Amino acid sequence: MLKNDLFLRALKGETVDRPPVWMMRQAGRYLPEFREIRDKYDFFTRCRTPELASEITVQPIRRFGMDAAILFSDILVVPQAMDIEVQMKPNFGPYLPHPVRSQADVDQVTVPDVTVALGYVMEAIKATKEKLEDEVPLIGFAGSPWTILCYCVQGQGSKTFDRAKEFCFTQPMAAHQLLQKITDTTIAYLKAKVRAGVDVVQIFDSWGGMLSPTDYREFSWHYNQQIVDALKADAPVIVFGKGCWFALGDMAQSGAAALGVDWTCSAKNARYLTGGKITLQGNFDPARLLSPPSEIKKMVAQMINEFGKDRYVVNLGHGILPNIAVDHAKAFIDAVKEYRVS
Amino acid sequence: MLKNDLFLRALKGETVDRPPVWMMRQAGRYLPEFREIRDKYDFFTRCRTPELASEITVQPIRRFGMDAAILFSDILVVPQAMDIEVQMKPNFGPYLPHPVRSQADVDQVTVPDVTVALGYVMEAIKATKEKLEDEVPLIGFAGSPWTILCYCVQGQGSKTFDRAKEFCFTQPMAAHQLLQKITDTTIAYLKAKVRAGVDVVQIFDSWGGMLSPTDYREFSWHYNQQIVDALKADAPVIVFGKGCWFALGDMAQSGAAALGVDWTCSAKNARYLTGGKITLQGNFDPARLLSPPSEIKKMVAQMINEFGKDRYVVNLGHGILPNIAVDHAKAFIDAVKEYRVS
Repeated sequence: MLKNDLFLRALKGETVDRPPVWMMRQAGRYLPEFREIRDKYDFFTRCRTPELASEITVQPIRRFGMDAAILFSDILVVPQAMDIEVQMKPNFGPYLPHPVRSQADVDQVTVPDVTVALGYVMEAIKATKEKLEDEVPLIGFAGSPWTILCYCVQGQGSKTFDRAKEFCFTQPMAAHQLLQKITDTTIAYLKAKVRAGVDVVQIFDSWGGMLSPTDYREFSWHYNQQIVDALKADAPVIVFGKGCWFALGDMAQSGAAALGVDWTCSAKNARYLTGGKITLQGNFDPARLLSPPSEIKKMVAQMINEFGKDRYVVNLGHGILPNIAVDHAKAFIDAVKEYRVS
Repeated sequence: MLKNDLFLRALKGETVDRPPVWMMRQAGRYLPEFREIRDKYDFFTRCRTPELASEITVQPIRRFGMDAAILFSDILVVPQAMDIEVQMKPNFGPYLPHPVRSQADVDQVTVPDVTVALGYVMEAIKATKEKLEDEVPLIGFAGSPWTILCYCVQGQGSKTFDRAKEFCFTQPMAAHQLLQKITDTTIAYLKAKVRAGVDVVQIFDSWGGMLSPTDYREFSWHYNQQIVDALKADAPVIVFGKGCWFALGDMAQSGAAALGVDWTCSAKNARYLTGGKITLQGNFDPARLLSPPSEIKKMVAQMINEFGKDRYVVNLGHGILPNIAVDHAKAFIDAVKEYRVS
């Protein structure tokens, strides 16, 4: 009963007049109305309060009219629900004071009842669906098990996540147990989200591109595949692996409805690597939104020409940067809406 | 007259019994004898004092017997020589208090006489050649102009280098002028290094992988190509672009003697993308040196089998991490020396 189902049709591979558009982190710091809420409530309060999370989620839809909303939340609510303490430090990012680094630590990690531990997310989904009034579909997301492990073991962000890798490479059995616990939790979590009302789910494998293809298959893809297998009958699944061009071939065989690509992978390469049949999503360099709006519009039209208007979802290649001016974001969205096949 | 010319022969594409091996950042913090010097002298004193730089350069050769030495220095000595202040802050990394962010800033940047401004590097080369006693070839290096620009504009390290990108995307004329000044300095610098005695030069494009293929061509590759063109008659040139798998095709046509690849690009992909004829260098995940030594040895042998022993230089896919144990580094080098075609 959605008024605008363009996004769902693109995920099914249907022929469309123009591709749908949304932006990763579209409910975020570049929006003045978001910053107003951020100045009043801390990070996890925003995540945990359905009224706030739903308001933040619909803000960009009201302002720009994207073709999909994505629930405001964070990938680290999952380890938090697994009894791993997660703090969000201003000007620092995530901080986990008790990182998981041994078999004993892994044994302590619980697989929770997500409807209880993450019940607030389900409430936020219901509140958001009410606010959206069936205008556009709602996306729910989770981090990939590997990306969640990165934070759980490293304890904070990192350029190389070498402590996380060390854990996997020197204690592979413990690492796989942790990955399986995260996977089981994530599957239950995403299924609950679909029951609560999200129309599509996306897996963010933000740090998959730090692994070699062999290690990626073992420590990341194996678990992403489990999630796709478990979810694909419930809702379309999008897999986005930043820097994971080397895995696009496997991903295209996975049963995912669409694959995200970053801006280092050209449309031509992405279509080639995925066999040309699956819906792709991306891949505008977030920093290219710093270009003048007229240039953004030209580049977006060119990007659509390169990917083709069908089996394609216009997006950035990663989250929008906090310092992007609102009229630059608008130019990006408008360019897609104004797109005509040339 | 080199006693061990295996590295030079591999760069020429000659048939060898085993591939040569060296490690990026092999003269570095994982070595106790390096840390001893580091505790006594600050970073730029080590770079600027020929006795120290040459001693640091030969330390890993003495201990492990790699097939090539690489002069201890830093890519940021080039902007420093161009009158851009560069500090190296402990536990922070490079810091440039007066970043280049306008046309006026670019106008202030000078193209120096490198034999004067970087005379200390030439002295370090001569001192190193004496210590090496023609045992193995000596590599000299420079950052790619794009990578140098990243630091000059951002003013410090960054996950996204968005200020550097903003400068290129909003002030492209000024950016190209800066890139050309860096290129002119780098060409003169590398030529002087060859005259002073280095046998091979390598260009490090550490941040090339942050750009889209189109932007890479405009803001990075265009200048790397100028350097290869200017240097290739003087010495073999190796180009290493981290995350630049998408540019390997262009790179293979450039006249470079060899191309570095990182660990996200499999041997098969790297050979395919480069047309199978050029020497490749890489690509062991530096974090995989955290694995047990026996596993390192197995993985190295497998890596050589995958790349093939000819037209190949064994290396890491990026610099060695400071927390690698000496016996793990040794396992890596020994595995190559013990390699036999199976």
